[in-house]
Amino acid sequence: MSELKNDRFLKALMREPVDMTPVWMMRQAGRYLPEYRATREKAGSFMDLCMNAELACEVTIQPLERYALDAAILFSDILTIPDAMGLQLRFAQGEVPKFDKPICSAADVKALGVPDPEGELQYVMNAVRTIRKELDGRVPLIGFSGSPWTLATYMVEGGSTKEFGKVKGMMFDDPHTMHTLLDTLAQSVTSYLNAQIAAGAQAVMIFDTWGGVLTPRDYKEFSLRYMQQIASGLTRENDGRKVPVVLFSKGAAGWLEAMAATDCDALGVDWTLDLGDARARVGDKVALQGNMDPSILYAKPERIEQEVQTILASYGQGNGHVFNLGHGIHQHIDPENVSVFIDAVHKHSKQYHQ
Amino acid sequence: MSELKNDRFLKALMREPVDMTPVWMMRQAGRYLPEYRATREKAGSFMDLCMNAELACEVTIQPLERYALDAAILFSDILTIPDAMGLQLRFAQGEVPKFDKPICSAADVKALGVPDPEGELQYVMNAVRTIRKELDGRVPLIGFSGSPWTLATYMVEGGSTKEFGKVKGMMFDDPHTMHTLLDTLAQSVTSYLNAQIAAGAQAVMIFDTWGGVLTPRDYKEFSLRYMQQIASGLTRENDGRKVPVVLFSKGAAGWLEAMAATDCDALGVDWTLDLGDARARVGDKVALQGNMDPSILYAKPERIEQEVQTILASYGQGNGHVFNLGHGIHQHIDPENVSVFIDAVHKHSKQYHQ
Repeated sequence: MSELKNDRFLKALMREPVDMTPVWMMRQAGRYLPEYRATREKAGSFMDLCMNAELACEVTIQPLERYALDAAILFSDILTIPDAMGLQLRFAQGEVPKFDKPICSAADVKALGVPDPEGELQYVMNAVRTIRKELDGRVPLIGFSGSPWTLATYMVEGGSTKEFGKVKGMMFDDPHTMHTLLDTLAQSVTSYLNAQIAAGAQAVMIFDTWGGVLTPRDYKEFSLRYMQQIASGLTRENDGRKVPVVLFSKGAAGWLEAMAATDCDALGVDWTLDLGDARARVGDKVALQGNMDPSILYAKPERIEQEVQTILASYGQGNGHVFNLGHGIHQHIDPENVSVFIDAVHKHSKQYHQ
Repeated sequence: MSELKNDRFLKALMREPVDMTPVWMMRQAGRYLPEYRATREKAGSFMDLCMNAELACEVTIQPLERYALDAAILFSDILTIPDAMGLQLRFAQGEVPKFDKPICSAADVKALGVPDPEGELQYVMNAVRTIRKELDGRVPLIGFSGSPWTLATYMVEGGSTKEFGKVKGMMFDDPHTMHTLLDTLAQSVTSYLNAQIAAGAQAVMIFDTWGGVLTPRDYKEFSLRYMQQIASGLTRENDGRKVPVVLFSKGAAGWLEAMAATDCDALGVDWTLDLGDARARVGDKVALQGNMDPSILYAKPERIEQEVQTILASYGQGNGHVFNLGHGIHQHIDPENVSVFIDAVHKHSKQYHQ
């Protein structure tokens, strides 16, 4: 593998000194970019794009051509694992995910196997290999997965939900079955992320999009516990370098300390927390990734630049900050505003790394 | 007015001793009840039901006939004020609110007036008077309003939103106009709630459904500040008794202390907080109302009863707790499960009030 030319991102995740704060964006390869929409058009469906290593690589690289980003993230979906388990993922109108064969019973849960990452999921590993080669050491490549709890919500609900009635019904009334499901998922995610690391991923992130719909008690028992199981089972090395693990739970203001006490290296945080407060709460246990409100990118350039400065000042002097949005970039953002954002992070962060 | 026979709810909001923990449910007059669906059918549209004092009274009382609830809440909608301002509210398919004339410019904001609560909004006051008379002192009646920020989100977006791009765009790029809008709304809510109190409301609640989509900085400047303006402008007396004010921001785990520092008497809290932790954070400044996950009502009776006990134990010994769900009851809940919940609160809470 070619030498890594920009390792700011990996260093920041390990709380090592950097020259300026690294920055990337969740969903940086996405619909706000006209070149993404063109490739997507060419590919067919969203899953067709995920399954085509060349095109997945193309869209992964696109934002790096426009912006001075410090990391690339694998273009894929969090629902690849349940799809590989046989639940038959499709994207209905408006890109809403649906499973044709959701989990409805304890028997359904027992029948689930751990997918072979170089079998049903080989298309993901092929994408990782292709992207890593194409990146040629430009910036590190992030691999990722959904968290067991988040995957379980889609699998039991059969798709997106606002009320989480079915999945919480199973959790409350049949916790044994829910734990079996989550354990199978944790094994699957571990094997999936280890395969991504073997294929070239230099950092991995676990997206717990729906951890924030739980009580603190249920979060610890049904979500965090399985992310810890994964973190403790990962191969943490690639090309002789540590592979950092980032946990991201949306709406995690209530339990940051518990997340920091796992074997992860960094926490993704949304904008409902003051970053300086979050840093005080987690101390030197973990790095922090975040936490700009994605909606600020609708604002004028001066206002975007001002918000970047506010967040940098809130984190303050020293190591351990990766700048990011607190959630994925929205579809209708002007790509010009993203330039303003990325450049502002580099420009204004140097003073905090002297 | 007839004497109040059950004042447990009002006492708990003022942190006075009670014999057992009072309980009510957000959206207790709602679609999970077959008798509600029958009245709604009879009324026509959702707004037809809100505007018919007799029928609004009928649905307000319905849950009290089934359950030993300690409070009634006015049947109405949070969007009555913008509708009265001329934005033309309608409910599209799936009960999704839409405004035919959303706020698109600074000129639109300047043109807004403060509605007369006994003019365009008299139908709400008529409902309060009718319900209060019909309750005949059985339990106290809660009046309510949306918060200025929450109302502004619907007014600027033209309805519901997931991304809040327009309203945050205005907040970021034209904070002066946003403050003008919020101030007009705060004046309107103050006058609206004061009229509800004059018409008979014995407690009032401000629903800040969307405060939780803001950063802590923006929350304090654009949401909390205007709730404080309202709280300080309310007539706090009815029938010689204090009228308590409850603030509810969904997703408020990050700024409970700031909310408790306003002139309110109680905070509504969702289930992403441990109630005992929340109590420790707010001290004896305010009472707490909450905080059971509404999804627990999908579970079996034993599990519901167990969750009630966990929450009561978390709050612990002493005064200042009103039991509630952390959000409105879901539409597909079995009404039988609600009985289990309400009875469990009364049965298991006596030990905490000795």
